[in-house]
Amino acid sequence: MADIAQRVTEHGRRAKQAAALLATTTAHQRNEALAKIAELLRLRAPEIIAENARDMQAGEQAGLSSAMLDRLKLDEVRIGKIAAAVEEILLLPDPLGRVLEEWTRPNGLHIQKIAVPLGVIGIIYESRPNVTVDAATLCLKAGNAVLLRGGSEALYSNLALAGVLREALEAVGLPASGVEILDFTDRAAVGEMARLDQYLSLIVPRGGHSLIRAVVENATVPVIKHDRGMAQIYVDETCDLDLAVQVVHNAKVQRPGVCNAVENLYVHVANQAALQAILADLREAGVEIRGCPRVLAACPECVPAAEEDWDTEYLDLILSVKVVDSMEQALEEIAAHSSGLTEAIITDDYEDAERFLREVDSACVYHNASTRFTDGGEFGLGAEIGISTDKLHARGPMGVRELTSYKYLVRGEGQVRK
Amino acid sequence: MADIAQRVTEHGRRAKQAAALLATTTAHQRNEALAKIAELLRLRAPEIIAENARDMQAGEQAGLSSAMLDRLKLDEVRIGKIAAAVEEILLLPDPLGRVLEEWTRPNGLHIQKIAVPLGVIGIIYESRPNVTVDAATLCLKAGNAVLLRGGSEALYSNLALAGVLREALEAVGLPASGVEILDFTDRAAVGEMARLDQYLSLIVPRGGHSLIRAVVENATVPVIKHDRGMAQIYVDETCDLDLAVQVVHNAKVQRPGVCNAVENLYVHVANQAALQAILADLREAGVEIRGCPRVLAACPECVPAAEEDWDTEYLDLILSVKVVDSMEQALEEIAAHSSGLTEAIITDDYEDAERFLREVDSACVYHNASTRFTDGGEFGLGAEIGISTDKLHARGPMGVRELTSYKYLVRGEGQVRK
Repeated sequence: MADIAQRVTEHGRRAKQAAALLATTTAHQRNEALAKIAELLRLRAPEIIAENARDMQAGEQAGLSSAMLDRLKLDEVRIGKIAAAVEEILLLPDPLGRVLEEWTRPNGLHIQKIAVPLGVIGIIYESRPNVTVDAATLCLKAGNAVLLRGGSEALYSNLALAGVLREALEAVGLPASGVEILDFTDRAAVGEMARLDQYLSLIVPRGGHSLIRAVVENATVPVIKHDRGMAQIYVDETCDLDLAVQVVHNAKVQRPGVCNAVENLYVHVANQAALQAILADLREAGVEIRGCPRVLAACPECVPAAEEDWDTEYLDLILSVKVVDSMEQALEEIAAHSSGLTEAIITDDYEDAERFLREVDSACVYHNASTRFTDGGEFGLGAEIGISTDKLHARGPMGVRELTSYKYLVRGEGQVRK
Repeated sequence: MADIAQRVTEHGRRAKQAAALLATTTAHQRNEALAKIAELLRLRAPEIIAENARDMQAGEQAGLSSAMLDRLKLDEVRIGKIAAAVEEILLLPDPLGRVLEEWTRPNGLHIQKIAVPLGVIGIIYESRPNVTVDAATLCLKAGNAVLLRGGSEALYSNLALAGVLREALEAVGLPASGVEILDFTDRAAVGEMARLDQYLSLIVPRGGHSLIRAVVENATVPVIKHDRGMAQIYVDETCDLDLAVQVVHNAKVQRPGVCNAVENLYVHVANQAALQAILADLREAGVEIRGCPRVLAACPECVPAAEEDWDTEYLDLILSVKVVDSMEQALEEIAAHSSGLTEAIITDDYEDAERFLREVDSACVYHNASTRFTDGGEFGLGAEIGISTDKLHARGPMGVRELTSYKYLVRGEGQVRK
């Protein structure tokens, strides 16, 4: 344990030193580093694939499922995609130095609030090795250093990828320690990282509920987390029927295993046409409907919803559906079951739409569009480091801009305080 | 313990309910509440003073110092000042609903990022009862509810003040639970609040280092803290002599006991005139100088600085002074000893000033002005809930705006994700 603490601390210390240098780089220097990363990823693909083969072999021996093994696997095509993603991040506008606000005080002091890097960002993730590159390059784009801790099943792949990142940084004259990675995967390292507030500005756990709780329970470092998705849609008293069917279909069926897929649907009692059309469409698409008694009355083949269903993130072709008497009831139900991430209203009533947008306390609230758009890429933020269900600092999709903080620059002429 | 946990949780639950209502209020409603608070504070002054007398009597019996007793004391004049401060907050622009960014995606989705309240803010503070009103009204102005936990020595005063706040909320038709206060002061309540992430969005410990560590070590709720101030000033190779003397004098002498008072001064070796003039001025003002050998050579009456002096927040008429060979050395020293709050450069060299502003990684960086301006009021942010030395969410002075988060409003025409 003492040894693990010491090793984690040493990685953190080096990353912090690098962060101080990265903070003073120009956008051009950081983009050069990203271009070099993409170039070297392609060039070093054979070595990366060889290291990945070690993980694959160990995974097969450990009896990982074929789905897990597929997520782990790297080949030339996938490495090419990872490199292309780096080049996309390169093309994003520079998030640093932006003047966020600016004003002059009556005493002549001129105050500018400008965007600066956060410092060192700790990222704890599982399985997929592409996260090593995606997360690190997003952080570097915003002038931050990273301390990475990937899953044990991808250790050799992650070390190979991080090696390329470090090589690229050095090649353009930046410190290799801009990317630090733990070369051991003891569980205790997670707790050590969570308490490394001396060196880390932020920690992002990307993984299941138990990983996130393990980090939150131990953290002295601020944590940005996305605990669970629980997207909900309300279909109002009047709406465009086709639009309602298409949007709900997309939100449930297009990719059911993700955090912005709809899990609860509420339909106004006066909109039986929409209820019928949506249920028919979803059932045809193979979706299991768990309904309230009024839904069962309209659709006897549906399953009765249990109490816990209204708080269940199915991540599957299952949907809870409730008939509500009013917009008020829909708002209450949504507040009671929301994870604070994303909800939508389908309506052609302008007043209802604006009220819903205003009153629903979630990161992304939609009118007449699919909850599936809750995503950094779809928002046009570029790639994302994660999605935050917190309200502090960053909420919803977190792209390059959300990896920055700010500072105040104050220019005076000798003003002193009275 | 179980009982304390239960009681803290119940206060949190009520505050959370109130927060949901407060989030949908108009600026006019919130300002009405603030006006009513100011009115009732003046009206209920006799009752508040009677409750305060109980605290004062207990404090005298417990042997509190006269300075402590003075901080605790409330009289008609002080209550009038507290009410006036509420009216100043009332006059601040509404921080909610502001469109922070706005754009349209190629598929026609219109995305607005707007300012919304954080939710429930927990505030843990010591001694001075005016914090009860200042902190709560700032939170209310930004549509947040508060859960307050004041110091035991001010319990009756705080309960009386919070009672007025709750009465005012009810009088204007808002929920009294917008202000919840713990009516017991067991130390265990601090830990319980720090882990109440079910109901609190944010916790602000205002007090000494041990209180802050107690909160950070236990917190599952995000913490905004101001750990220590350690303002530093660098006097460059060339500068306006009078300006340098005035600014350093102000930063050290005007109010030495606060976090933005200068503690370390660095002077370029080529600027002996500034060194001499500053030392003479400070010594005349009764400041003890702890210097490096080159300072002692210039001023034999000064005291040699010990290693730990460079990291000591004196909060007193003492200053550490070092002669440096270059701007680079000054930047290194400043980075090594900074608390990340505030630093200043005194120079008439434009390039040096801009480099210093850019490279120093602190919340507020000054050119040719006193570090004492690091303050919400002085920045024109209105009153402040605190000063943050973190980089997440809010940095530096935190006014009403820094008590908000944002959400994305997305208006579509049936867009679905491909």
